[in-house]
Amino acid sequence: MLDAMRLFPSEPAARRVAAKLYDTVRDLPILSPHGHTDPSWFAKDEAFPDPAALFIQPDHYIFRMLYSQGISLESLGIPQAGAKGDEKQSAADPREVWRIFAKSYYLFRGTPTRLWFDYSLSTLFGLTERLNPNNADEYYDVISRKLQTPEFRPRALFEKFKIEVLSTTDSPLDTLEYHKAIRESGWKGRVLPTFRPDAVIDAEYAGFTENIEKLGAISGENVGTFKGYLNALRKRRAFFKSYGATATDHGHLTAMTADLDPGAAESLYQRILSGRSTAEEQQLFQAQMLTEMAGMSVEDGLTMQLHPGSIRNHNKQVYERFGRDKGADIPSATEYVRNLRPLLSKYGNEAGFIFILFTLDESTFSRELAPLAGHYPALRLGPPWWFHDSPEGMMRFRETATETAGFYNTVGFNDDTRAFLSIPSRHDVARRIDCAFLGRLVTEHRLDEDEAFEVIKDLTVNLVKKAYKL
Amino acid sequence: MLDAMRLFPSEPAARRVAAKLYDTVRDLPILSPHGHTDPSWFAKDEAFPDPAALFIQPDHYIFRMLYSQGISLESLGIPQAGAKGDEKQSAADPREVWRIFAKSYYLFRGTPTRLWFDYSLSTLFGLTERLNPNNADEYYDVISRKLQTPEFRPRALFEKFKIEVLSTTDSPLDTLEYHKAIRESGWKGRVLPTFRPDAVIDAEYAGFTENIEKLGAISGENVGTFKGYLNALRKRRAFFKSYGATATDHGHLTAMTADLDPGAAESLYQRILSGRSTAEEQQLFQAQMLTEMAGMSVEDGLTMQLHPGSIRNHNKQVYERFGRDKGADIPSATEYVRNLRPLLSKYGNEAGFIFILFTLDESTFSRELAPLAGHYPALRLGPPWWFHDSPEGMMRFRETATETAGFYNTVGFNDDTRAFLSIPSRHDVARRIDCAFLGRLVTEHRLDEDEAFEVIKDLTVNLVKKAYKL
Amino acid sequence: MLDAMRLFPSEPAARRVAAKLYDTVRDLPILSPHGHTDPSWFAKDEAFPDPAALFIQPDHYIFRMLYSQGISLESLGIPQAGAKGDEKQSAADPREVWRIFAKSYYLFRGTPTRLWFDYSLSTLFGLTERLNPNNADEYYDVISRKLQTPEFRPRALFEKFKIEVLSTTDSPLDTLEYHKAIRESGWKGRVLPTFRPDAVIDAEYAGFTENIEKLGAISGENVGTFKGYLNALRKRRAFFKSYGATATDHGHLTAMTADLDPGAAESLYQRILSGRSTAEEQQLFQAQMLTEMAGMSVEDGLTMQLHPGSIRNHNKQVYERFGRDKGADIPSATEYVRNLRPLLSKYGNEAGFIFILFTLDESTFSRELAPLAGHYPALRLGPPWWFHDSPEGMMRFRETATETAGFYNTVGFNDDTRAFLSIPSRHDVARRIDCAFLGRLVTEHRLDEDEAFEVIKDLTVNLVKKAYKL
Repeated sequence: MLDAMRLFPSEPAARRVAAKLYDTVRDLPILSPHGHTDPSWFAKDEAFPDPAALFIQPDHYIFRMLYSQGISLESLGIPQAGAKGDEKQSAADPREVWRIFAKSYYLFRGTPTRLWFDYSLSTLFGLTERLNPNNADEYYDVISRKLQTPEFRPRALFEKFKIEVLSTTDSPLDTLEYHKAIRESGWKGRVLPTFRPDAVIDAEYAGFTENIEKLGAISGENVGTFKGYLNALRKRRAFFKSYGATATDHGHLTAMTADLDPGAAESLYQRILSGRSTAEEQQLFQAQMLTEMAGMSVEDGLTMQLHPGSIRNHNKQVYERFGRDKGADIPSATEYVRNLRPLLSKYGNEAGFIFILFTLDESTFSRELAPLAGHYPALRLGPPWWFHDSPEGMMRFRETATETAGFYNTVGFNDDTRAFLSIPSRHDVARRIDCAFLGRLVTEHRLDEDEAFEVIKDLTVNLVKKAYKL
Repeated sequence: MLDAMRLFPSEPAARRVAAKLYDTVRDLPILSPHGHTDPSWFAKDEAFPDPAALFIQPDHYIFRMLYSQGISLESLGIPQAGAKGDEKQSAADPREVWRIFAKSYYLFRGTPTRLWFDYSLSTLFGLTERLNPNNADEYYDVISRKLQTPEFRPRALFEKFKIEVLSTTDSPLDTLEYHKAIRESGWKGRVLPTFRPDAVIDAEYAGFTENIEKLGAISGENVGTFKGYLNALRKRRAFFKSYGATATDHGHLTAMTADLDPGAAESLYQRILSGRSTAEEQQLFQAQMLTEMAGMSVEDGLTMQLHPGSIRNHNKQVYERFGRDKGADIPSATEYVRNLRPLLSKYGNEAGFIFILFTLDESTFSRELAPLAGHYPALRLGPPWWFHDSPEGMMRFRETATETAGFYNTVGFNDDTRAFLSIPSRHDVARRIDCAFLGRLVTEHRLDEDEAFEVIKDLTVNLVKKAYKL
Repeated sequence: MLDAMRLFPSEPAARRVAAKLYDTVRDLPILSPHGHTDPSWFAKDEAFPDPAALFIQPDHYIFRMLYSQGISLESLGIPQAGAKGDEKQSAADPREVWRIFAKSYYLFRGTPTRLWFDYSLSTLFGLTERLNPNNADEYYDVISRKLQTPEFRPRALFEKFKIEVLSTTDSPLDTLEYHKAIRESGWKGRVLPTFRPDAVIDAEYAGFTENIEKLGAISGENVGTFKGYLNALRKRRAFFKSYGATATDHGHLTAMTADLDPGAAESLYQRILSGRSTAEEQQLFQAQMLTEMAGMSVEDGLTMQLHPGSIRNHNKQVYERFGRDKGADIPSATEYVRNLRPLLSKYGNEAGFIFILFTLDESTFSRELAPLAGHYPALRLGPPWWFHDSPEGMMRFRETATETAGFYNTVGFNDDTRAFLSIPSRHDVARRIDCAFLGRLVTEHRLDEDEAFEVIKDLTVNLVKKAYKL
């Protein structure tokens, strides 16, 4: 099922170069500095449940596609919003869910989900025939059985995948108890938290007011003032650092930044706290907070990541019934040049500050992001994100960003996934596409072959370590 | 002139796969579910006039390019605006028009017009040398002669082209007399109307007020109220359905939709009727009407198409002298995610409702349209439209949409043409480009070869029939 | 170092065609109708200074990339803003600057700078090993020595490069003394001025008020009235024409145009003169002036160029310390369709008026620019500009513009450079990419081979001469 030459150019000369390059990085350890795996997996090291719960119910790439073709989320066992504990157990029989998936597997033709899933089936479970309605039950049984074996426990897989470091994404209110448990367990796997403070910055975030209160409580700061609030965040960042965090992450609707004077910032914060702020004030507060966070990164050295441009929970009916992260987050046009100016004017020239930009709007790569990253010392370009974490998307990224930003203002690959089993396949796809791009550059005499070997290693390892200070 | 391998990748392995795939769809019947041919052609079955009137004067792809290089529309025999009946007869000698075209044929190098025209010359008229000033007269004579033969009558060509179904685009005020005549003639050709109500929804449409009056008259409804107006539209839809219509189509400046409460909608309608509405009110009315039309589609099952983003009649001088559709409609940036939310919140999850989106703004494929279509059950992506109905445009569509929306949220090809003779060539180009794309996927091991054979058939036939309920 | 097949497709059939095409244009003279070389070089014909001053300090492509990776502009010898005469002499040792560049040369992998620089080293200085820290000193010495020889004087290089015509870009207040000196020197090199009036149209331009005064003084017109101001511009255009100018150029933040009535234009001009105008008024004035300039082009036949969309001096700190043109100009999304309508409504159909549009927003090529240029007689598409003057950028331009605008609404290549020594390499890259594109069209049977030979010659020579009236 997995051809050794997959994803390389079909033109033989470029393919040969790509394959040679790939040989040198195929077996390198995985650096995963940004993602959404659950640290409790590695703290508890319990067996994963059934194939549906492992592959389908947590993967919005999969169930959104099935939903788009009229398959109900109920039939896939997606839990209703508000369900807790036992209720969260899907009413759907996991084997039935798996059968639906197998029957609809043709829908994923031409998508990266297909590549990732085939890779996992083949390399992890030795299942080399394409999933289909006839082998669905057999596959379900094989996977179920293997998941109960010690080799398929989270830590064993972590080691099998040769993961050198894996970062999670965590609320600023998180106690990091699982990260603590991992450290104290004696297990050597390096699982690091990432500071993602959206829950206490975005006034529309569910439970915002209580979140601010909790922030005050756990930090011992007076969050009734902007200064106290900032100090609370500073303390939480230090706490995250003490558990190995090297980065922050910020999910905003836009890339808007601001640089208010202290009085205006304090007033704005009071408006936000009051619960009577307008949408504009909330956006301005988020904008101001990006700049504040950049300032703290200059202080404490945490690499800063910005993921803007996703309109969350676009489908009202699905949101009301099933809650967030149900495949209904839709990208929108994103402006970086004017929006980032206040932050960059203040901190863009700072030595040692690393600020990684992501986008869901590919038109910005050649127009805005590569020119910005090709000038400001602080800026780096994150890899293709979400919908664009795909062969064509990754190739377009290299084609549109490299000529202006070069390779050395990029930061290697992020798998950005909740789907733990897909991590090796995602890194494999990324490495192959980079090899394919470099193979073309070499055969078109735009880069010398000896340099391509250096570049592929830099993209796979060195640039990741440097950008995320690993 | 027509190489058997045209439009396939030049890389031999991908080309071989593309050619094998093409072999299986080359001779399949044509499904043309969206276009602008004239139903009277098939009702009357009269000979087409001279080559200029057939190929040049109705084809804005051709005369806009000639005009862009300084050739006057008068010299091409384009009639002045307001000309009627006999006056419409061009003052220009058709043979002279043809000679100008032949002399300027090099301007079309690298354009799809060139591909379509060469195909028609070669397959229909056996003229296999490239059109040029030296053969212009001979070609004119050959074509003129053939057009007078029975084999070149509209119905004979329809059959020769193996058209299984051909949809026209029609005013809601149309009596469908030609569709009726076709049905009553005993001829088996399947020519279906499409309900395109712009003329009674867009307050800026020429004759809007009279159009509304006519709508009342032919429907017997009181169009003085919004409810009566909606009922009138409902009746017209039913009338179109009775003549075989399976779809509606909507040409709007933006993709804006609205979901007003009944009182607000009624008031807005009264403002529109008053003739004193502002541009904003007119736009809001159109936005509201898209949602109303979606609701009616949920009721009556007509597939809904939206073609937004064209700024019509951009060239004021040309518009004043020659009227609309003179190659001066220019695309503009189009926003879908926020604009469609009211409609999709209401009807996007409806089983059985099919809503096909088109765009002139290619940057939206990977950013907005594929993510939307890859989630909402009602949504499908229409094929590349207008300026993008071309080899590069079609390839970019597959490259930017497939990884997120898959193949199965697309609907096959539309020729969308007024140029009847170009229909087979347009479908041929589309089939070849799909084969080229699939050939690359197969040789890059992103899709198995047996699957590619299924996909090409689905793209050519099955997805079209499903989306348009044919 | 320079492979004969560089930049051609690696697929052998397309490569063969590309190479054959290239053979026919490789040695054709260079037409450089738009650029930023210094006319004093050719007037004085003095030796260029050291390698750092020649290659690095004037080239913002190079120093912005070094700066983006944390190398200070001081260490590269970039002079501080406000420095004059002797102070302008960099404090940095040029040999040290060169060493920094050599050590950081890997940063340019995959960028066009790398292609241009390798070409210059190899073809001009016979230095065929890649620049690196080990050969840096030797290369510095070789280049320094050669720069002192007669063969490396500006005029000798001009001839060696086979430049048939070279246009500079000049302030409307320029006395054109160097152009005069060139003419009077008896040297045959054709160096032409270009009229770029931003300094007297953009109210935010440094020294705007004094510039207007100077404009009045040198033209003898009363610039206190709009009419006098326009007459002054008319006279300056005539003066430029008398020194061989064939074109104007306009750098604006947006593509906004306006068509005010004379009274409103006069009032607006008075507001601008008053020094109390708002940003909106200033933008409207620029918009109005584009239309005025178009009108003057209709009168005097100067080809008009518009370069919109660059946000200048984005990095405040760098601007304050080092001044303009320091690699911190960042593109932004640019709208053409609505913005150009006033100008095009007035002059877009004028015979003989040539208006060339450039963009930094590639998404506009297929959406806006090609449809506009494929209709309006006056419009032409300029080649990929600035960040997009690169192999991928040029290929995307052909792929996204050709199918709608054809080849014949384009104008050949602009090198647009201050880096005199890079001119041959830039034209070489452009010719090769055009050959690569045509090679693919031919092998995919989208264009006949005999036509490709005509097209490549048209792109290299004929379309340039026609568009710029050379």
